[in-house]
Amino acid sequence: MRDAVVMHSIGRNIWAIPEGYIPDHSMGPAPEMTSHETACILNCNREAARVEITIYFSDRPPLGPFIVDIAGERTLHLRFNELGEGAIPRGVDYASVLRANIPIVVQHTRLDSRQAQNALLSTIAYAA
Amino acid sequence: MRDAVVMHSIGRNIWAIPEGYIPDHSMGPAPEMTSHETACILNCNREAARVEITIYFSDRPPLGPFIVDIAGERTLHLRFNELGEGAIPRGVDYASVLRANIPIVVQHTRLDSRQAQNALLSTIAYAA
Amino acid sequence: MRDAVVMHSIGRNIWAIPEGYIPDHSMGPAPEMTSHETACILNCNREAARVEITIYFSDRPPLGPFIVDIAGERTLHLRFNELGEGAIPRGVDYASVLRANIPIVVQHTRLDSRQAQNALLSTIAYAA
Amino acid sequence: MRDAVVMHSIGRNIWAIPEGYIPDHSMGPAPEMTSHETACILNCNREAARVEITIYFSDRPPLGPFIVDIAGERTLHLRFNELGEGAIPRGVDYASVLRANIPIVVQHTRLDSRQAQNALLSTIAYAA
Repeated sequence: MRDAVVMHSIGRNIWAIPEGYIPDHSMGPAPEMTSHETACILNCNREAARVEITIYFSDRPPLGPFIVDIAGERTLHLRFNELGEGAIPRGVDYASVLRANIPIVVQHTRLDSRQAQNALLSTIAYAA
Repeated sequence: MRDAVVMHSIGRNIWAIPEGYIPDHSMGPAPEMTSHETACILNCNREAARVEITIYFSDRPPLGPFIVDIAGERTLHLRFNELGEGAIPRGVDYASVLRANIPIVVQHTRLDSRQAQNALLSTIAYAA
Repeated sequence: MRDAVVMHSIGRNIWAIPEGYIPDHSMGPAPEMTSHETACILNCNREAARVEITIYFSDRPPLGPFIVDIAGERTLHLRFNELGEGAIPRGVDYASVLRANIPIVVQHTRLDSRQAQNALLSTIAYAA
Repeated sequence: MRDAVVMHSIGRNIWAIPEGYIPDHSMGPAPEMTSHETACILNCNREAARVEITIYFSDRPPLGPFIVDIAGERTLHLRFNELGEGAIPRGVDYASVLRANIPIVVQHTRLDSRQAQNALLSTIAYAA
């Protein structure tokens, strides 16, 4: 019982990640230079979380929201380049906002596929 | 006396780290590509801290809690792959929640064993 | 309507980034070792944001403020070495403070130009 | 006048960095593998800041405090291996707490000397 009460309070409903960039693969020695922008999402609640993701750009209107569901007591390491085929254009700067219906925790990580999930950067996202 | 009072207030009791991944070594040029997920824990209190660690996955129920004790005024750089032999499966995404009986501070770091503790990423964990 | 209300509350007006360093290119094997200090700024508001950036040094008075405008619902990944030709001297430690007229979110990232926007470090800035 | 008021409120008095490690150089291909643990400190106040740094270990009592002064409106990128000759032993895990008499902002960064200040990791420290 104690756990249920405590766990329900872990996290926030709104998170922001100002940094985002999916390389244009043809610009580098693909595929080993391909990097993967990831939003690691933790849902400590007993119930499933519904997350709405909005993508912001420097030169065009926002895209989305994209809908992602995460089962209760599960984590999802969501790659932005898998949000939908061609959803986020390559080679442009973007940012993202995640809004969930229940509290979640979000960590932004960029992975380098050369080394099987060897990360290059990571930060807890901004909790609004 | 001043120090004792101030130090007792450093940190929080609950911390979350959404990112976690222990590579399947056979997938890369082992051992030099082995990375070490680490939770650096600081206990500024005079008394020992007991920390309960729960591991969350994308496709199976949570694991734990694993119990770790940290003496007063000490730090512990805990490697997740040493939580228990085979406790966390290799090659799968995970997340973690640390719950302590007294305030602690937690920093998530991934180390690259190729260069004797040369870190690749780091972030202060999310304080619930 | 819901979105407008929620989005207006994302972020803070003042952000600090204590770390900053633009290499003196002649000291390394340029240009492939050139790194780019970046402040990724997200403006979720409907209206444009005006950001004033002040640069602090270890051995001289602060520089600025430099003025940057960001349209509503847009992100700007601002490179410090493009704040103004020669504005920030190379090869010296600096820090920065960003003050906006409306709430924004700021993430500090260092990019490595060898790999087309492959980041080396990143952290959400400090929200004052 | 506005600036003076706003700037005085940037930061916190107590910061914690759970991660710390200064390699034993003889264990690697020195000096190019030497990494530098750095606490980037920003003092936005008009007056100087006095910072007391305490170092925590996994297996011995805390060390310090070491005293560092930072002039008003200046930044100091403090390398832990320069806190005092031999002050922090090499090859052991440590953590640090910084306590200032006025608000400061602290960012933890590890630099790789191979590439002239090319950072490998960074995070805003934990503000107590």
